[in-house]
Formats: sequence, structure tokens, C-alpha cells
Amino acid sequence: MSHFDEEIKLQTQAPGRYTRSMPDSWNIGTVPNGGYLMTLAVRALTQQVPQHPDPFSVTVHYLRPAVANEPCQIDAQILRTGATLSTGRATLSQQDKSRLEVLAAFGNLEAGAQAGGQTAAQTSTTIAAPDAPPPEQCIVRSSELQGVDLPIMNRLDIRLHPNEFRASPAGKPQMTGWIRFKDGRPPDSLSLLLFADSFPPAIFGLIGMVGWVPTIELTVHVRRRPAPGWILGQFRTHDLADGRMIEDGALWDSSGALVAQSRQLAMLRRRD
Amino acid sequence: MSHFDEEIKLQTQAPGRYTRSMPDSWNIGTVPNGGYLMTLAVRALTQQVPQHPDPFSVTVHYLRPAVANEPCQIDAQILRTGATLSTGRATLSQQDKSRLEVLAAFGNLEAGAQAGGQTAAQTSTTIAAPDAPPPEQCIVRSSELQGVDLPIMNRLDIRLHPNEFRASPAGKPQMTGWIRFKDGRPPDSLSLLLFADSFPPAIFGLIGMVGWVPTIELTVHVRRRPAPGWILGQFRTHDLADGRMIEDGALWDSSGALVAQSRQLAMLRRRD
Repeated sequence: MSHFDEEIKLQTQAPGRYTRSMPDSWNIGTVPNGGYLMTLAVRALTQQVPQHPDPFSVTVHYLRPAVANEPCQIDAQILRTGATLSTGRATLSQQDKSRLEVLAAFGNLEAGAQAGGQTAAQTSTTIAAPDAPPPEQCIVRSSELQGVDLPIMNRLDIRLHPNEFRASPAGKPQMTGWIRFKDGRPPDSLSLLLFADSFPPAIFGLIGMVGWVPTIELTVHVRRRPAPGWILGQFRTHDLADGRMIEDGALWDSSGALVAQSRQLAMLRRRD
Repeated sequence: MSHFDEEIKLQTQAPGRYTRSMPDSWNIGTVPNGGYLMTLAVRALTQQVPQHPDPFSVTVHYLRPAVANEPCQIDAQILRTGATLSTGRATLSQQDKSRLEVLAAFGNLEAGAQAGGQTAAQTSTTIAAPDAPPPEQCIVRSSELQGVDLPIMNRLDIRLHPNEFRASPAGKPQMTGWIRFKDGRPPDSLSLLLFADSFPPAIFGLIGMVGWVPTIELTVHVRRRPAPGWILGQFRTHDLADGRMIEDGALWDSSGALVAQSRQLAMLRRRD
């Protein structure tokens, strides 16, 4: 079993109430990665609606940092289940304090638009994958680059575009790169939530790998189940004001298909 | 008092519990507009945290259509309040069934980044307003164009780009236009939530004003308090597959400043 599958296993305490230990293996610095935490909350929801295994839309608000090596509790409630869609909310708590709140919709990405009994739209349009050097020509995301411990890099293999991983005169607020599980686990719709929150902030492409960029809110839309292999990600910030910014992202699978989009509101706190 | 201010007034039943009648004046066809419903839920939250009057990030999931001329109840809970940010969730119900669920963060858009006691980032970047013909050269959104009753057009003045309001050989999934309250009420941060959900779907610019586009989830980020006057909106769909699509939007005020961004996941159900 892969590390990820092992480390998102939940124990059921009561209907809708789950617990597990919080490993430090997904840490950024001393704090568990928000994308990993999101997958825990979403798993607590999807296992209640097995007919709708794929997250269509997941919004997470980060209320307080999670604490590694302390148990966590997840309270997950399905609000509505229909033929094609379920909606639910979940709270992840530690030490009796809520750490994150999730609101999400789920369905089945393989069922297609026919499942609702409506005629599927024939129209289709997508966002093409950007050009990027192959993974072996990219730079491994590392503690040395960022000046912070990255235990998560024992779980994930992340390669950054050689022109974007540090600020340069031609720098722009963009981060492109590749991601996969280090132990070879193939990507699935759940892991795209993690991958959407595992790259360095796009703003580092403009200002360098300095500062602290806490996420207020992150929404991920999963659009397709990914093919096996590397996932290509591109993240951009076009809107930064008063120390808060919007970062847009997209993920493509090894076949070039768009598999997820993301958008987050984050704060930029520079080191001085 | 403006119609909008009158029609978002809530009666307090108990701490965190509010009620009001559901007017039909914001209807699209026979159903109250989702943007209007969102402002009701958000108002129930913001009036609990007067120090944080501006919605920074609001996500709404539409569970069931609301019912005009039936009373509604809103249960709104603040999950966390900090120096610069409050987070809360709200449920709008009618006839004992939840109609929409909101998860949102609030703050003060005039306080600036200093409020957190951290050094504000000097860096700033924004999205420029697109070119658009002035409102008087645009087409009024109307029942005749869309083939559906639009009582909401007695409340809002909406003008659509003359090249985008209907499908054409050069059509693209884009909708640009102007919006303001019909009774002259100036825009504020709350009303941007309504405005972000009051244009016809961008996909109509590609396929014509046909079909039904129910929103699954909508997230709006308010970035600045708007100046008085018209609000310019532009909405685009780059990602449509299996009958579900992502629509991105942005709103600019009369000074040209970006005041909000939006993204929604919606279903496309064509008329056959």
C-alpha cells in the first residue's frame, strides 16, 4: 500500500465522525500541508457516498494550522444526495479546535453527462497544456531552494520549471512544474486535491522564494480522472493587492488532458 | 431606502437564526436568482461580525431551487474570528429543506494589509478592465432575448456587449457587459456578490441564449470596495466537458479598478 493510501486511512468513531493520527510526513516546515489535510476531510465525505467517489468542487477554509503528531477528528456530514451529485461539509479538528472547514460536491467523473437523464451538451472546450521542459530538465523542489524543511518531499516528487523557480529580471508570478507520488502510486481524482496545493506559491516566481504565503481559502475543481504518470501543473497570480492575492492553477495528466483547476485566496507576508 | 436594502433585511429569531419573506422580485423565470440568495446568507454572517463587513471569499453550493413567496430561514454560524479575518458558514432553508449552503471569509477591505501587524507586501499586480462599448451602445438583457421571464430586470440594469449577446459565426463563450441597480443605489462589497451572478451564462455567447445552466457551486472573491457608478463584468468559459463547465468572471468599477473575481461550476442542459 502506498504511503498516501496508508496516511489517509480513517477510523470510524460514530456515523460521520472519524479520527486518525496526524503524521509529520506531509509537513511544509513544521506544519502539515493544507492539500493533505483537504484530502482527509474529503475522504471522510466520499466514503459516505460510494456512488459519488470523485470530488467535483472542493472549497477549504484554513482556520488554524494543523499540528503534526497530534490526533485529529473529522466530522463530515452529507447535506444532500441526488442522482448525479452529493454535497457535504466537513470539519477537521485537533485539540478541540477546528483547523479547517470544507464544503464540497461529489459525483462520478466516468458516468458522463447522460447520468442525469438529460441530453449531454455536445459542445466541448478545454485549456491546452502549456509547454514545459521535461521533468528531467526541471529543478527538484528542495529545502535548500526555499530555506524551509520540506518533509513532504519524501512523499512527493516535484520538479519546477528552470526559468521560474527563482526570481529573475524577467520573472513573472508563475510556477510551472511536474508532480507525482514518490513511491509510484498512480494519481487519482482525490490526489489531485493534494497536487493542487503542493507547488511553491506562484508569486515566488516574481519575488523569489521568500516569505510566507498562508492560504485563506482554496477551491479545486476536478474535471477528469487522471491517466497514470506525471501531472503537469501551472499556477499564476494576476491579482495581488493589499497583501492578499488570487492564485489560479491548472493540472494536466500525462495524456495532456486538463484534469483539475484551482483558485486560492492567500496572504503574502514577506520576510523583512 | 433602495429595493435591495429593503429586500435583504433579516429578522432575528434567535442568536444566529434569521428569517424573512422571499420576494419574487429577483426571479429568473420562476426561481429567485442565486446571487440574491447568496447576499441573504452573507448578510446573516456579516451582521454578526461588524468589524469585518466585507466578504473576502464566499463559496455557495446550490442544493435545491429556492421558492418565491415562501418564508426563508437562515442559520449562520461564525466559526472563527481573528484580528483581520472572520470565517463562517450559513444555511438558507425553506419548507424545512436547505436550499443553499455558504462558507465564507470576511474582513475589512479598507484596513489594508497593515492590520495584521505584518509588513504589507509592496508588490501589486492586477487585471486590467477589458475594452467594451459604453452602456448606451450595449443591449439591455431582456425576456425577449432569453425566452424566459426576467423579473430581476426591474431591480437591475444590465447591458450586454452587442457582439456577445447572441451566438454568431465568430461567437466565443464570453459575456461582457455593464450592471448597476435600477433605483440608483450605489454598489458596495455585498452587492458585488449579486452582480457576479446576474449576467447570462458566458456559454450563451457561443451557443446562443438556449438551455438551462444550473450552478452547482459559485465562489466570489471581493477585492476592493467599488466606486459609485456602473460595474463592468466579463465572464468566460474555457473548460466545458461532459456537460459541466467552469465559468470565470471579473468585475471592475467605474474607476477601472478590479473589484471582484468569480468562478463557478455549472451544468449545461440544452433544450432539444
